[in-house]
Amino acid sequence: MPAIDGLTFLKRVRDLKAEVWIDGQKIKENICEHYAFKGLIKSKAKLFDLQLEKDFMTYQSPLTGERVGSSFLIPQSKEELEIRRLTTQEWAKTSGGMMGRSPDYMNTGMMALGAAWEEFQDTANRGVNIQKLYEQARENDLTISHTFVNPQVNRSLGYFEDDDAPISARVVEENKDGIVIKGARLLATQGGITDELLVLPVGGKYIEEPFIYAFSIPSNTENLKFICRESFAYRSSPFDHPLGSRFEEMDTIVVFDNVLVPWERVFLYKDYSIVTNMYEETHFYAFLLHQTVARQVIKTELLLGVAQMLVDSIDIGAYQHVQEKISEIIAGLESMNALLLKSELEAKLDKRGVMVPEPSPLFAAITSYPQLYPRFIEILELLGASGLISIPTEEDFHSDIRPDLDQYLQSVSCAALERTKLFRMAWDICLSSFGGRQRLYERFFFGDPIRLKSGLYNSYPKDKAIELAKSMLAKE
Amino acid sequence: MPAIDGLTFLKRVRDLKAEVWIDGQKIKENICEHYAFKGLIKSKAKLFDLQLEKDFMTYQSPLTGERVGSSFLIPQSKEELEIRRLTTQEWAKTSGGMMGRSPDYMNTGMMALGAAWEEFQDTANRGVNIQKLYEQARENDLTISHTFVNPQVNRSLGYFEDDDAPISARVVEENKDGIVIKGARLLATQGGITDELLVLPVGGKYIEEPFIYAFSIPSNTENLKFICRESFAYRSSPFDHPLGSRFEEMDTIVVFDNVLVPWERVFLYKDYSIVTNMYEETHFYAFLLHQTVARQVIKTELLLGVAQMLVDSIDIGAYQHVQEKISEIIAGLESMNALLLKSELEAKLDKRGVMVPEPSPLFAAITSYPQLYPRFIEILELLGASGLISIPTEEDFHSDIRPDLDQYLQSVSCAALERTKLFRMAWDICLSSFGGRQRLYERFFFGDPIRLKSGLYNSYPKDKAIELAKSMLAKE
Amino acid sequence: MPAIDGLTFLKRVRDLKAEVWIDGQKIKENICEHYAFKGLIKSKAKLFDLQLEKDFMTYQSPLTGERVGSSFLIPQSKEELEIRRLTTQEWAKTSGGMMGRSPDYMNTGMMALGAAWEEFQDTANRGVNIQKLYEQARENDLTISHTFVNPQVNRSLGYFEDDDAPISARVVEENKDGIVIKGARLLATQGGITDELLVLPVGGKYIEEPFIYAFSIPSNTENLKFICRESFAYRSSPFDHPLGSRFEEMDTIVVFDNVLVPWERVFLYKDYSIVTNMYEETHFYAFLLHQTVARQVIKTELLLGVAQMLVDSIDIGAYQHVQEKISEIIAGLESMNALLLKSELEAKLDKRGVMVPEPSPLFAAITSYPQLYPRFIEILELLGASGLISIPTEEDFHSDIRPDLDQYLQSVSCAALERTKLFRMAWDICLSSFGGRQRLYERFFFGDPIRLKSGLYNSYPKDKAIELAKSMLAKE
Amino acid sequence: MPAIDGLTFLKRVRDLKAEVWIDGQKIKENICEHYAFKGLIKSKAKLFDLQLEKDFMTYQSPLTGERVGSSFLIPQSKEELEIRRLTTQEWAKTSGGMMGRSPDYMNTGMMALGAAWEEFQDTANRGVNIQKLYEQARENDLTISHTFVNPQVNRSLGYFEDDDAPISARVVEENKDGIVIKGARLLATQGGITDELLVLPVGGKYIEEPFIYAFSIPSNTENLKFICRESFAYRSSPFDHPLGSRFEEMDTIVVFDNVLVPWERVFLYKDYSIVTNMYEETHFYAFLLHQTVARQVIKTELLLGVAQMLVDSIDIGAYQHVQEKISEIIAGLESMNALLLKSELEAKLDKRGVMVPEPSPLFAAITSYPQLYPRFIEILELLGASGLISIPTEEDFHSDIRPDLDQYLQSVSCAALERTKLFRMAWDICLSSFGGRQRLYERFFFGDPIRLKSGLYNSYPKDKAIELAKSMLAKE
Repeated sequence: MPAIDGLTFLKRVRDLKAEVWIDGQKIKENICEHYAFKGLIKSKAKLFDLQLEKDFMTYQSPLTGERVGSSFLIPQSKEELEIRRLTTQEWAKTSGGMMGRSPDYMNTGMMALGAAWEEFQDTANRGVNIQKLYEQARENDLTISHTFVNPQVNRSLGYFEDDDAPISARVVEENKDGIVIKGARLLATQGGITDELLVLPVGGKYIEEPFIYAFSIPSNTENLKFICRESFAYRSSPFDHPLGSRFEEMDTIVVFDNVLVPWERVFLYKDYSIVTNMYEETHFYAFLLHQTVARQVIKTELLLGVAQMLVDSIDIGAYQHVQEKISEIIAGLESMNALLLKSELEAKLDKRGVMVPEPSPLFAAITSYPQLYPRFIEILELLGASGLISIPTEEDFHSDIRPDLDQYLQSVSCAALERTKLFRMAWDICLSSFGGRQRLYERFFFGDPIRLKSGLYNSYPKDKAIELAKSMLAKE
Repeated sequence: MPAIDGLTFLKRVRDLKAEVWIDGQKIKENICEHYAFKGLIKSKAKLFDLQLEKDFMTYQSPLTGERVGSSFLIPQSKEELEIRRLTTQEWAKTSGGMMGRSPDYMNTGMMALGAAWEEFQDTANRGVNIQKLYEQARENDLTISHTFVNPQVNRSLGYFEDDDAPISARVVEENKDGIVIKGARLLATQGGITDELLVLPVGGKYIEEPFIYAFSIPSNTENLKFICRESFAYRSSPFDHPLGSRFEEMDTIVVFDNVLVPWERVFLYKDYSIVTNMYEETHFYAFLLHQTVARQVIKTELLLGVAQMLVDSIDIGAYQHVQEKISEIIAGLESMNALLLKSELEAKLDKRGVMVPEPSPLFAAITSYPQLYPRFIEILELLGASGLISIPTEEDFHSDIRPDLDQYLQSVSCAALERTKLFRMAWDICLSSFGGRQRLYERFFFGDPIRLKSGLYNSYPKDKAIELAKSMLAKE
Repeated sequence: MPAIDGLTFLKRVRDLKAEVWIDGQKIKENICEHYAFKGLIKSKAKLFDLQLEKDFMTYQSPLTGERVGSSFLIPQSKEELEIRRLTTQEWAKTSGGMMGRSPDYMNTGMMALGAAWEEFQDTANRGVNIQKLYEQARENDLTISHTFVNPQVNRSLGYFEDDDAPISARVVEENKDGIVIKGARLLATQGGITDELLVLPVGGKYIEEPFIYAFSIPSNTENLKFICRESFAYRSSPFDHPLGSRFEEMDTIVVFDNVLVPWERVFLYKDYSIVTNMYEETHFYAFLLHQTVARQVIKTELLLGVAQMLVDSIDIGAYQHVQEKISEIIAGLESMNALLLKSELEAKLDKRGVMVPEPSPLFAAITSYPQLYPRFIEILELLGASGLISIPTEEDFHSDIRPDLDQYLQSVSCAALERTKLFRMAWDICLSSFGGRQRLYERFFFGDPIRLKSGLYNSYPKDKAIELAKSMLAKE
Repeated sequence: MPAIDGLTFLKRVRDLKAEVWIDGQKIKENICEHYAFKGLIKSKAKLFDLQLEKDFMTYQSPLTGERVGSSFLIPQSKEELEIRRLTTQEWAKTSGGMMGRSPDYMNTGMMALGAAWEEFQDTANRGVNIQKLYEQARENDLTISHTFVNPQVNRSLGYFEDDDAPISARVVEENKDGIVIKGARLLATQGGITDELLVLPVGGKYIEEPFIYAFSIPSNTENLKFICRESFAYRSSPFDHPLGSRFEEMDTIVVFDNVLVPWERVFLYKDYSIVTNMYEETHFYAFLLHQTVARQVIKTELLLGVAQMLVDSIDIGAYQHVQEKISEIIAGLESMNALLLKSELEAKLDKRGVMVPEPSPLFAAITSYPQLYPRFIEILELLGASGLISIPTEEDFHSDIRPDLDQYLQSVSCAALERTKLFRMAWDICLSSFGGRQRLYERFFFGDPIRLKSGLYNSYPKDKAIELAKSMLAKE
């Protein structure tokens, strides 16, 4: 089955029946109808319909000749890189970039791993496994969640866990069928509502053997549990919570309660020589960042649009400080976009014939965005001011109080209802629990900002700059 | 009836029955039990009990000799200013400074106006009215809401409203019983659940006659309506929403639907010579700022405490960047505190024998806090990181999943339950809808930050500094 | 005479004999030997030699077929835009971008005006004049200074000058030979040492008739005076002041003491319809910005190189906060570079067949750099710390004290002499009077940063963003 | 001899004849007349005259009953602390706080050590030595330079120096007359022109035995050399360089070329138990910070004065962004001042009966100022803009060009000459080499800002804040 439609997607999620806990309850009903998930799942279903509508969003499978999603495309030219970007941005537009884990995110990761399957070849031939997992995902348009983060028990330097009662998920047994995992992982976004869960080793210089593994398993694998945080879809009215009601993605703690992972799904095991450089060698980060920055560009565009609409609605565009604030968003948008384009302009073919975006501009973008995004949110708050507080709800507009609202909440350029819709969206971006999580996510989207900056420092080629500085010294 | 206890307060709110609209419904039940209000009202009731417990929180009424609340005290010495500060801070501690409109806030405003009643003396003897309103509030321990802000229809320069269909509340009639008000005001926090509503003229250089008025009326006055925004008390569990469940104050739009204000409650009317300088002459701002900064000091102390507890819980205190971040909060706390003390140290008796805190340091504080508070929130987010996301709810701890939580969410220094409580509080400060509103409020607590800065620029005595600069020029 | 060599340049400056005042004296000697100018003039001479060495730095004159400088090239393709960029950067490398007014700067301006000469066509056929002035400059490799800024008498809104005693330069007479100018202009960098002075109208919405003019005249025109500020070439030793001794450009006040400008040199006169949009219509800003950002990229590269060399010299590269700081420069460099490339990628042919770089990314760059550059200077200061203070001079190394210096100023990776050279360069970038002026210049390079931001706000196409925001509102 | 006058001071400096190297030469002439020193020495002489003029600036010596300088006063009450502050500020006003090492700075240090002499008591009775050194300084009004910083050879963690060829000054021998020191110290400001040089151990957790020493010796001690950096007194005209010509303090590298320090001048030697906590136990930092912050308050006041004069001179005070910028300086000034006062308000008597200012607010101030000061400089640059560049010199005003200057540099509120004086001072604060050093100094005045913040983090009592946070958790 190639690229699917929304209905197929909905049916698949309904039938998945992974073990998902929320508010102290295991979900037993159809999860597509559950208050905490229905908005997101509906929004995702639309993505699949959209994918079938736009030609460039699918391509011919090299395996079957059928149309498969372009987010699975292994790019071999700059044009194909551009198709990947356009695909991501087309989807991102439907949520204004608010769905951080739209399917293309981990499809991209899977693509990078699959394209570089030879990097995982070991004595047990495990490279072939990731190649198959990738193809399977592509041919069936599978959705994938993943986990990167270990429990945050202790972040001090030099802390190592005790062996007896695993906290971080680890291999506790190996047998003829596969490996057995026990322990937890934090922060699988959309955990339990994707077809698969991709489990990758957590980075860091020192990694012990029981933590060297990588695999992908169905979300409904036995003994696999997903524990949800509180849902931020507090209201299902898109009028009241225009974003939260539709794009609340949910984050889960993943518990592996002695989960058996079959050998054919394991593509890395105990091989220290592979794990050390796997993310660099597969260009996993370069590709994920290309998708991420493409999405962040759209998100920034949304912020600019909302900001300008706020400005127009209360007619403050002539104030100098307002112009300064908007111009700051514009400069940020242009920079993010320019860095994205530069990564494509400077893309290079790797030894496998894959066109890899240049990572430096992408790393520059991803180390900047954790400052830019919160600043832009601040600008929205400063522009919206008290108008972001006194905003009635959909039901108020359907009540006897409506004439008062129409009169007292009108704005210079639009009626009270339109104005309220706009300010509620601004509120949902800046101030709601949904918006708060978005802000936190952009701060940490690609991990600890401090570590990201160290990464950029260490990887960036500085020779040309040093040469220039030296030439200035030598001159007399 | 002097300083009241919590029970009396509860009874009074129950009996008030002001016209309050929420979610498209007029509230008919006991508002003390309403999901959106019960947390706050309960928290306020405790304030009154506390007031009776602590000696310094009450003083002998000059009128009756009975104990009345110290937030009504007209200070005549620096010691009495200190008592006012301690009173505010004692109350603020119960909410960590999160209740921006605890009763002492507007009590303070009422006190300033009452103490300076002579400023309002006009041909109709209206100064006496505010003096009586103040005494009444003091002797009955009334709670007061107020409104400062006009609807945000159009913020462009040089915009004036049309006369026919008032938007901003204005006098539309005057008769033998009083004046009739029609139109709206934005942003009466706790509107409809306080005994009185104090309505003051909106500042600005150009004010037209129909907008020159000031009065206080009972919240249940006929034709007075309060329209609530969505409640952020999404969950009533203090475990899940430790702040939102207890301190969500609610903001309302106030609609005056031809409200008759009796003459004896009007203390300013059409007198341009009074309205121009009334806030300066009554030291209204100086006293409100003294209360505000005192509360912000407590709030900052809470942020420091929570930040340090986060640090300890995951043992990251040895990291240099963590130490830098916490030291930034400390420096902010020390500065706010120092500015508060300086305002008392430099306080002066006015012509009426009232000890007025020096406004400059308070204005310095209030122009800094709109940057400091969001920065401290950012620091909490950077410290808590992904730990602020995967936080289960109270019900999860009462379910079969608990052993997993106990194991996987434990931290180096505390059990999963304690850690979860801590992180939920941090989340409620930083990331929840409740926390979002707090951040927006501190940005704008005393009005538009840009205007505040202009105010400081214009009022600050710069002679000494210029003299110093000139002396440097003259020197050879 | 086509592209010239350094010697020709030197001879020309020597023979120019413009009226230049410095330290209360009119310069009478050979200005090429004057302490305040010799370093710069020598550095400029080298630019001309370099231009002849590199093929891409010249092209065939369409008029004569001889080689002329590529900074005069009217680009008709993206490739030619790239040649322009490479030319600018090749020159910029010789000064690490510290020569803000290398010849290509105003050559670029002249090129933009000359290419768009038809915009200046009026009843007196003045468009032809600028076309000729451009060709003359190109064919003779003339150097050009210019002035944009009126005296800073009064910057309040709504200030207009008195007519009788002109302060800002204005037309005071017109006769058969030309127009007569009286008054001053501020800030002609390198004033009096370039062949020509290009005088352009100062922007702004309201411009009175006597200020509507544009022309180019030889610097040694009668009654034209250049008054220098203090020279920052305090020491001529490139060891002691590696930048100031070589790249101090000098700024001058230009006094027009009834200067007669011949008609054939006037290309704009009293025509309000031309002056209003001349900078937009000629793409003057777009081309100047393209040159400016290209130079700023090189300058940023120098800062990165120096920063990294400081880090290496005292071996602090392992500190996290050091890595963060350097990564900040890297991200800035990548962004500036990406914006520059984007402006070329999105360049479009105008109606005249000129390939014009897209201005939005360039404006984004130029509104960011006034923050970036001072921040990078701050980073250098924080990295160099006390090492930027205790730095001996060239003469110290030639004295008996040298063994002490060799011992006590050695660093982990280099000898005391090398280390001192490096730190002196860092000092000259950050802390010297020369460096101070550089910082001020980058803050204001393209004019008032606030006005630049308003410009970006007003010119940026925001429709796509608003459309996106609206699509999010409409969704339900 | 008690508090001295300026003439006595001048004579003493003249007769000192320490070994001072500058520009590759050993100074042989009267240093008071040397171009690099004469401005500063003259400015210091005035301080001594001023001290005799103002009663509160001296007090009765407990030893002799004669008047001695109040900067030597061991405070025993808050009133005496205030006298200390006033004394510092009175002196600071003469240089606008630009003389970082006015005599009261190290007098204060000497006072702290002397008052706590018992802390240095060891088996050799060395506490008595510092007591005597202190008394000697007080009774003779000695000026003192000091050194804190080791050469910056290698700043990586875990670097230890080789023993054989000392770089950092260390004890290389001990004999009956004293100890012999070999090696260097960086950054003795005013080295070689003060009576004494106080040498203190460099902080840090790990200190090796040869580095555990403290002493004070005359600057003209045999084998002691001071190597100057380049002088920034480029011009001696107070018109041209109003600050640099008068307050350029000079920094020196101190070379100990086997300097014999007599036993009676050594007050710490090889005693690890003393060195570890000596700065805390003597309240050395608390007192130095009290002096420093008092000076920084004056400096900030100067910046405010200059900023406001710039604003007035070009009449830009009505612009909102200008008001914001000035209000930022005001808020900083108020905060610094408030923290200073808080440190006195919360001062406590130590076990020796000395009134010690509370260190926390002072540390808060000193961790803030390294950001505040550069930001205020930035504000001055943004206000002065291009006006900070085109500023003529004194000689220009004495030349034929003067009429042009008078006409074209006049400003709305003052004549060209006055305006030029003002802008030259602003330039000397912001942009000159002198100003650059000032900025670097304020960044690092009390050492590495990162370490300062760690210090504040570690020393600040956080219990109250944690208690408050816990009380919020417990509540239900």
